[in-house]
Amino acid sequence: MNIPVNTTTAAHDLADPDTPFAVVDVHKTRRNIERLQARADRLGVTLRPHVKTAKSLDVAALMHGDTPCPVTVSTLAEAEAFADGGYTDITYAVGIDPHKLPRVIALLRRGVRLRILLDSVEQASFVAEASRQAGIPIPTQIEIDCDGHRGGLKPDAPALPEAGRILHDAGCLDGVLTHAGESYFAYTAEEERLAAKNERDTAVAAAERLRAAGLPVDTVSVGSTPTAHAAEDLTGVTELRAGNYVFFDLVMAGLGVCQVEDLALSVVVTVIGHRPEYGWIVTDGGWMAMSRDRGTAVQAQDQGYGLVTDLNGNLVPNLVMTAASQEHGTLTARDGADLPDLPVGTRLRILPNHACATAAQHRGYHVIEGTRSTGAVPVIEAFWQRVTGW
Amino acid sequence: MNIPVNTTTAAHDLADPDTPFAVVDVHKTRRNIERLQARADRLGVTLRPHVKTAKSLDVAALMHGDTPCPVTVSTLAEAEAFADGGYTDITYAVGIDPHKLPRVIALLRRGVRLRILLDSVEQASFVAEASRQAGIPIPTQIEIDCDGHRGGLKPDAPALPEAGRILHDAGCLDGVLTHAGESYFAYTAEEERLAAKNERDTAVAAAERLRAAGLPVDTVSVGSTPTAHAAEDLTGVTELRAGNYVFFDLVMAGLGVCQVEDLALSVVVTVIGHRPEYGWIVTDGGWMAMSRDRGTAVQAQDQGYGLVTDLNGNLVPNLVMTAASQEHGTLTARDGADLPDLPVGTRLRILPNHACATAAQHRGYHVIEGTRSTGAVPVIEAFWQRVTGW
Repeated sequence: MNIPVNTTTAAHDLADPDTPFAVVDVHKTRRNIERLQARADRLGVTLRPHVKTAKSLDVAALMHGDTPCPVTVSTLAEAEAFADGGYTDITYAVGIDPHKLPRVIALLRRGVRLRILLDSVEQASFVAEASRQAGIPIPTQIEIDCDGHRGGLKPDAPALPEAGRILHDAGCLDGVLTHAGESYFAYTAEEERLAAKNERDTAVAAAERLRAAGLPVDTVSVGSTPTAHAAEDLTGVTELRAGNYVFFDLVMAGLGVCQVEDLALSVVVTVIGHRPEYGWIVTDGGWMAMSRDRGTAVQAQDQGYGLVTDLNGNLVPNLVMTAASQEHGTLTARDGADLPDLPVGTRLRILPNHACATAAQHRGYHVIEGTRSTGAVPVIEAFWQRVTGW
Repeated sequence: MNIPVNTTTAAHDLADPDTPFAVVDVHKTRRNIERLQARADRLGVTLRPHVKTAKSLDVAALMHGDTPCPVTVSTLAEAEAFADGGYTDITYAVGIDPHKLPRVIALLRRGVRLRILLDSVEQASFVAEASRQAGIPIPTQIEIDCDGHRGGLKPDAPALPEAGRILHDAGCLDGVLTHAGESYFAYTAEEERLAAKNERDTAVAAAERLRAAGLPVDTVSVGSTPTAHAAEDLTGVTELRAGNYVFFDLVMAGLGVCQVEDLALSVVVTVIGHRPEYGWIVTDGGWMAMSRDRGTAVQAQDQGYGLVTDLNGNLVPNLVMTAASQEHGTLTARDGADLPDLPVGTRLRILPNHACATAAQHRGYHVIEGTRSTGAVPVIEAFWQRVTGW
C-alpha cells in the first residue's frame, strides 16, 4: 500500500472527524483504474482519464507511474491545477468560450499542450484570430455529435470542413472528439456495445470527412465511462476518455458497468434521530453532503439518494436514503423490511448516485486503504484536496 | 449605497470574470431583508435569520446595524465562522450528534450563547452528561414536529416532558423549536396561512405541555420562509426563523411567496454553442454552477434548472434552462416561441430553483448594486466569500 500522504487533519480513523465527510477507498479506486487501463491497453488506445470526477492530483497520481499521464479536464481551474502538478498533456473538453482564450494561451506559453474544443465556425474564427494575435497555435479539436446528447457537429454538417479549414489555416487543427452521453441511458450490455460502436464510427467518419477535405487529423478521441467499458473495436480511434470510472456510483451500477461493491466514494454520516411512526432514521447527511443528484430515479431500481453501508463498507440490507434536506438525510427500509436498530451516534456510509456530483460537495477526501475488514474502524491514511471553482 | 468592500478580484463588471460565477444583487437582497424584518416587527417577534442560504458574513451584515443580530446556522462551521465575526447569539438548528458536543462546548466557553437542538431522550441524556462533565450548561431546544416533515417530537409525545426534565435538571433546557417544512408544498395563500398557524399552534402547545410539567420554557421558535411571510398571529412565539428569503428563488416564486423580480441570486453563464436542429442554445453553466436541484419540477410551472435574464437582470422571454450536465447548460424556448439570437460569447444570468443549493456550488458572490439599468453592464462592487464545509 503506497498512498501519497498529504494529511491536513489529525483524524486517525473514520470514527473521528465530525460528519458528514467524504471517503475514498483507495483499494477500490486502484482496482477500477487498473480495470479500464487494461481495457485501453487491449484496445490499443491511449487512455486520457477525465479528472472532473475526483478533481484531485492525488487520485490522478494513482493512474500513472512517475510520468503524468494525459488528462481531460472540465474547467480551466483544473487545467491550471494539473499544469501546476506537472501534467503537460491536457484536453479541456468543454466548448470554448472566446473570453477564456487568454488563460488557454497562458497555459500554452507555460509549455502545456492544452487542447481545446469547439463546434462552430464562429468559435473557429475566434480561435484562429486569437492564435494569430498571440503568435502561438492553439491545438483545437472539433466536437462531434454522435447521439444528440449535447454539443457537437454531425459528421455530415457543412460546418465541419468549414471550421476545420479555418483551424487548419491557423495551424490549430488537432482532431475530433465525441462523447456518447446517451450511453448513460443504455440499459443492456448490447445497447452499450452499440453505443460504443456508434461513438467510434461517428468519430472516425468525422475524421475521414476532414481528411477527405485535405485537412490532417491527428487526434480521434472518444469516450464515456459506459462506452469505454463496452467498446470492442476502436480502430481509427487514437484515445479513450472516461472519468467516473475511478469511483463509479449507483448510476453506473444500475447500468451494469460496475457492481455496487466497486463504488470507491462514500459519505460518512451519523444517525441523529428516529421517527418510528414514519419508518425513518434521520442522519446529519443531507443534500449538502450528497448533492441533489437523483440519477437512479430514471433507472429500473431507484436508489433514492443512496445505499447505506456500515463504516467497513458492508451494505446494510434494504436500507435506502430516500429523502434529503440541506443537512438532514432520511433512511427508510425497502420492501417492507424492518428498520435496523441504529442508535443515535451510529456512523454509516452512504454510496452515492453520482460520484461527480457528490464529490463536488466536499473540499476533499479522507482516504482509507479499504481492504475489507470486519472489526476495526478503517484508519484514515490521508486527506486529499479537490480543485474547486472555474 | 454602502456595500462592505471585500474585493479579492480585479474584475470590475459582469462582463469580466470568467463564467460561470454567482452574482448577488444587493438592492434586491436589502429589499427582501427589509420586507421580512418589517413583518417580524409587526408580529412582535425577534427575527433570527437562518444564514445557511448565503453562508456569508457580508450578506448577514445587511441584516443589522452595528450590533450582530441573532442567527440560525445549519453547521458548526457556520457557527464558528459567525462567532469569529462577532455573533454571540447562535442557534444550531440540526439535531445534535453527540460527537459534535466538544465543539459546542468550545463555542460556549468563548462566550457565544450557542443553542443546540434535539428530539430524543437519548440525545438529552448525552447533552446533560456532557454539560455536567464540562461544568457548563448547554442551552438546548427540543425540536417539535408540526407537520411530519422531518425531525421532532409531537407535542403529545411522552418523550417531550421526559427529555425536558433531563435537560432542565442539568440546567440545559432553553425551549422548543419547530419548522414547517411542508409549507414548501403549500400552493395557495390560504394553505400557507394555515401552515403558519399550525406551526405556531404546535410550538406553543409543546411549550405549554413542558410548562405544565413544571419545566420553564424561554424560547418558542418557529419558522420557514413561506410561513414567515404568511403568519398573521404569533402569540406565544418568541422568535421567527427564515433563511431563503434573503435571496429567494424560483421555488419561492412558484409558491407565491415572492415575485421572480425579487430573486437576488443568479449565475452568469456564457453561450458556447447552438444546436438549431434540436432547438438548443448551449452554455457553460451546468449543474456544477446551478446544482442538481429541480425544486420547481413538482410545482404547477416547472422552471427546469432556471429562467434566463440578460446581464442587467431583464428576463429573456420564454427561455428556460431545461437540461444540465456537469459544465453544460441547455436553454430551450417555451411554448413554441422562437429561440432568441444569442451569439457565442453572449453572457446571460440564470435565476435558480433553489438559492441554498445553487449558492453552495460557489466559493462566494460577485456583488452588484442592482438598481435596474438598461444599458451599462453592472459594476462588480465586491466579492463576498461563503463559509464552506461542516
